[in-house]
Amino acid sequence: MNFCSSCGEKVSLEIPHGDNRLRHVCLQCGTIHYQNPKIVTGCIVEWQDKILLCLRSIEPKKGLWTLPAGFMENQETNIEGAAREAREEANADVRDMNLFSMFSIPHINQVYTFYRGSLHQGKASVGEETEEVALVAEQDIPWDKLAFPVVIETLKLYFTDRASGDFKTHCGEILKQADDKLVATVYK
Amino acid sequence: MNFCSSCGEKVSLEIPHGDNRLRHVCLQCGTIHYQNPKIVTGCIVEWQDKILLCLRSIEPKKGLWTLPAGFMENQETNIEGAAREAREEANADVRDMNLFSMFSIPHINQVYTFYRGSLHQGKASVGEETEEVALVAEQDIPWDKLAFPVVIETLKLYFTDRASGDFKTHCGEILKQADDKLVATVYK
Repeated sequence: MNFCSSCGEKVSLEIPHGDNRLRHVCLQCGTIHYQNPKIVTGCIVEWQDKILLCLRSIEPKKGLWTLPAGFMENQETNIEGAAREAREEANADVRDMNLFSMFSIPHINQVYTFYRGSLHQGKASVGEETEEVALVAEQDIPWDKLAFPVVIETLKLYFTDRASGDFKTHCGEILKQADDKLVATVYK
Repeated sequence: MNFCSSCGEKVSLEIPHGDNRLRHVCLQCGTIHYQNPKIVTGCIVEWQDKILLCLRSIEPKKGLWTLPAGFMENQETNIEGAAREAREEANADVRDMNLFSMFSIPHINQVYTFYRGSLHQGKASVGEETEEVALVAEQDIPWDKLAFPVVIETLKLYFTDRASGDFKTHCGEILKQADDKLVATVYK
């Protein structure tokens, strides 16, 4: 951020009065430009004993499999955003949704939420940002070809819960260590 | 938003190629300035049979009671943000936190998260944005002097769960109707 989006003057990186963090502040009009984490919201879409995976047709992680998910938009609820992403990316109508997981990923300033829901009439097809869709059984999950660590962690929790017959809402974090390794923790 | 924060030129409200929403787009440098919901994160802080409430010393809702909460910052996890807010607003050290509720409030483009946790050594005192702190038993909750609907809904769920001896993670929304009335829904 170089310029004030309100008045167009140059911004300065300063700690505002009464604050304790550096912010982009406009010295001309006084606007403080806060930057905060974004929410990515998506679905585990169930059909019989299978779940819906999408092969990404765009970067990042083009050619790898993922759960339908994307940035939550203004003016929508978190659950609406998750349903919208499944519709846009896989033409999937998801019903009976329940919050399944929430992961903070602070090194990229994102919070992921995933809802578990059922695929209406088992119908899905290729949508935006997607090259192929598939309904996949547990034994066929392409674990080494999944696009994002948060998808891997969420699916591990999902199959563990499904085996136990008790779906919970899980909360955790994925942190980048000094050696760049990502470490996932699910809070108890 | 009037100007591009990257290059300082005027922005235009357009639907970018491949998108379906109006965005602030810079016609000079091509930057698309997405705007997304912000997360507010806070705590229900327990001490014996009481919970911690803070009397707001600033607008909005100055002079009304609330749970410690505030905007999640970049580079922190959602749970760290909740603990930080309790520390900043009430000098409270919150331990053993569990995600208790998540509410979408689309008309203000916010998602609230609250964690349930215990107040270390029962110690709290007046912090930032706070005029008074109090440990309050259920029968003394000032229901008609609570600052925000999301706090009322969260505390109703909390005392219901506490009575049943089974704390769940709740997910819901607060919508503004055409007549400006707010309606809260908790998903089943």
